[in-house]
Amino acid sequence: MEEKEMYEKEYEEREELTEERILEMLEERRFKELKEELENNMYPVDLADLMEDFNQKQLVMVFRLLAKEEAAETFTYMDSDLREMLINGLTDSELEEVMEEMYLDDTVDVLEEMPANVVDRLLMATDEEKRQQINQLLQYPEDSAGSVMNVEYIALRREMTVAESILKIRQVGLNKETIYTCYVTEKRKLIGVVDVKELLTTSESKTIEEIMDTNMLYAHTTDDQEDVANIITKYGLIALPIVDHEMCMVGIVTVDDAMEVLQEETTEDISIMAGVSPNDESYFGTTVLEHVKSRLPWLLFLMLSATVTQMIMNHYESALAVMPQLAGFIPMLMGTGGNCGSQSSTLMIRGLAVGEIEFGDLFKVIFKEVRVAVLISLILSTVNGIRILIMGQGDILVALTIGMTMACTIILAKIVGCTLPLVAKKVGLDPAIMATPLISTLVDISTVTVYFAIVSAVFKI
Amino acid sequence: MEEKEMYEKEYEEREELTEERILEMLEERRFKELKEELENNMYPVDLADLMEDFNQKQLVMVFRLLAKEEAAETFTYMDSDLREMLINGLTDSELEEVMEEMYLDDTVDVLEEMPANVVDRLLMATDEEKRQQINQLLQYPEDSAGSVMNVEYIALRREMTVAESILKIRQVGLNKETIYTCYVTEKRKLIGVVDVKELLTTSESKTIEEIMDTNMLYAHTTDDQEDVANIITKYGLIALPIVDHEMCMVGIVTVDDAMEVLQEETTEDISIMAGVSPNDESYFGTTVLEHVKSRLPWLLFLMLSATVTQMIMNHYESALAVMPQLAGFIPMLMGTGGNCGSQSSTLMIRGLAVGEIEFGDLFKVIFKEVRVAVLISLILSTVNGIRILIMGQGDILVALTIGMTMACTIILAKIVGCTLPLVAKKVGLDPAIMATPLISTLVDISTVTVYFAIVSAVFKI
Repeated sequence: MEEKEMYEKEYEEREELTEERILEMLEERRFKELKEELENNMYPVDLADLMEDFNQKQLVMVFRLLAKEEAAETFTYMDSDLREMLINGLTDSELEEVMEEMYLDDTVDVLEEMPANVVDRLLMATDEEKRQQINQLLQYPEDSAGSVMNVEYIALRREMTVAESILKIRQVGLNKETIYTCYVTEKRKLIGVVDVKELLTTSESKTIEEIMDTNMLYAHTTDDQEDVANIITKYGLIALPIVDHEMCMVGIVTVDDAMEVLQEETTEDISIMAGVSPNDESYFGTTVLEHVKSRLPWLLFLMLSATVTQMIMNHYESALAVMPQLAGFIPMLMGTGGNCGSQSSTLMIRGLAVGEIEFGDLFKVIFKEVRVAVLISLILSTVNGIRILIMGQGDILVALTIGMTMACTIILAKIVGCTLPLVAKKVGLDPAIMATPLISTLVDISTVTVYFAIVSAVFKI
Repeated sequence: MEEKEMYEKEYEEREELTEERILEMLEERRFKELKEELENNMYPVDLADLMEDFNQKQLVMVFRLLAKEEAAETFTYMDSDLREMLINGLTDSELEEVMEEMYLDDTVDVLEEMPANVVDRLLMATDEEKRQQINQLLQYPEDSAGSVMNVEYIALRREMTVAESILKIRQVGLNKETIYTCYVTEKRKLIGVVDVKELLTTSESKTIEEIMDTNMLYAHTTDDQEDVANIITKYGLIALPIVDHEMCMVGIVTVDDAMEVLQEETTEDISIMAGVSPNDESYFGTTVLEHVKSRLPWLLFLMLSATVTQMIMNHYESALAVMPQLAGFIPMLMGTGGNCGSQSSTLMIRGLAVGEIEFGDLFKVIFKEVRVAVLISLILSTVNGIRILIMGQGDILVALTIGMTMACTIILAKIVGCTLPLVAKKVGLDPAIMATPLISTLVDISTVTVYFAIVSAVFKI
């Protein structure tokens, strides 16, 4: 406790640059002080967050106080509305500076989110060479390695010495996002990689050829960005080289981009799994109407699908009229089935996402799930049967009927739950669609079908 | 298509070192060839995977062919059973070599998973200094920054020149996991950080004090590992310094560890959200019995909770006997409510995990969710009312009753769905518990309560 208090005190003592303080300093025209504070006390990603509710004038004033690199970095972290407002407030030459300082992959991200007129203005503020590179990057399919890669990296030749390589890094390194892995190319083809750690810890007279690793990992421009991010995670890399179909080096994906990709893809998966169409904005950055739009389609579809369950139940109206207590068991049966199914489908969806499970494992998975289902259904049916008898909700016949239904439901739910995500992946759909909402609805339908079939057979109604 | 074929051909041409080929080469005692292939053609993480089904003799034979560093790295990637088998097959001096080569944080991970007798043997194979460091690391709470940090990093002093610093990296860098960020300390206190990029791209005669960044990010040993990983992602860092409560530098958390932490935490969250108790093993690494054990508790709890729904329905048995078609609407009402609730709770759980939403946002969130719920319930109730009339499942009174119930359910479900995860976080529970399974059960109970209250009022039964 005491320790905790100490931390808190420490945090308090550190002067925080809040939204209010910035606005106050702007108001009182204490620009020099603000400029210093921004330099020493603020990270671009936090500043972009802080300025969310600024008006154009405030935004432009703060932006002009920033050093060139900080300005460009802050710009990349802004959300698209804020960015548009800022662009409209900047002069052409200021815009040129920003475009010059930004890394190419960030520039492409920005351009993809801007309306056409703003894109035109931004491209006008870019020099010819960079514009060509941008156009090339814009052509890679969405979510491909090409679309997230950075084209600025350090290329070495095999005959260079370690000393020459370090000199080259000294000369060109400042403008590269990462210098920590260098790539050895020959006629543009990737032939090896060298870590800067290697360069710094071996004799300066050695050649690159002697120390380069030729068994290097790489990915293709058309590979899925999630696969690329998974490779970077698995092998603990700082960057992964991206090559075209002729093994020519075209760029790198860095570990910070990979982390962003993984976080985005996970958020997307989790949203889809809950029946929410994913969007790139944050929760608070999404308006009420947009929230409705992203949640409504699945709800509508699932509500209408539930009609099937209803029609089956209506078909057995007479049975329900005779034994109305039978209806009371339905929510429990459906709930248990749905939960069993979603356990299996969730484990599959996650296993597919991290690359542990693939379609080829289908039968192995089904075999495992069936054994799990049999054990679980034995235990749940027994517990539930005892409960029914103790609570006097029915006789032994009712307990057996419910038990049999439950066992069938659980086994079916587990099979459906583990099969659908794998099949979805196989046919090119997103496995995350096959999550709880859809699985529950399918399980609901099979549960009532099985239930009334067994009820009719046992009670002859 | 053509491009794709080209890739595939390329992949085929590259000789793959498979499990079968390794076993074959062992069998035929082609050790030299295997040793070369392992050196040039295999990553430790993949090798650990390949050897999963090896017996002890095969395992030890392959292990002895590896270079020291590769051996240690492969060792850290093995699962605990395989590792134990290997340890029992190695001599004390071989074990000493492995323990010497492993990074400290990996050593600690290994020790935490091993049974006591193996731990004793491993610690005996460790020198005194390292053993003390290990003991200290083992004392940090599970999931804290201290438990995942690495204590080997490069420390510089403020009066050193850039040239001296590079020389120091040259001397001590080889044994450090990352050299790319160096830490400036004074009497062990962290006073600044310097990127190697900075060192390599400024004049060699400058001092560290001139180029160091004193506005550095850091975390405390007791901070949650997920928070630390989120900081590393947010600011795109390669490593984050970890300090004790006196600002003394004790270690670093590197980006690859952060990615692992995030992936583990996400898998854990997703499992809990589906009502599966998380474990550290993979899907296939978990036995059928363990799967049952991790899935059963929630299923049992939820099944028994569903009894409440059943008791409420039984209470209205007479109403159901009079109008049995009323039962048919229940699955649809519950399903829609459950889906609405889980949409909200999932968005909250994810927002909390990535640090976008916090408890203080509760009222802001509720206000947003209620507006979303009102719009959604208007649309769904209308569509459903029209459907009831068209399909002849009831008159306008039935349509209104169902519509009203649906609206109440949706609004309630969204409020419950967004509130519970935030409250869970506040009281120190894992918000992921408040996901679909539990929310559905709660929503089921409120749905039938509301439904029969409205039905009784409207139809006077």
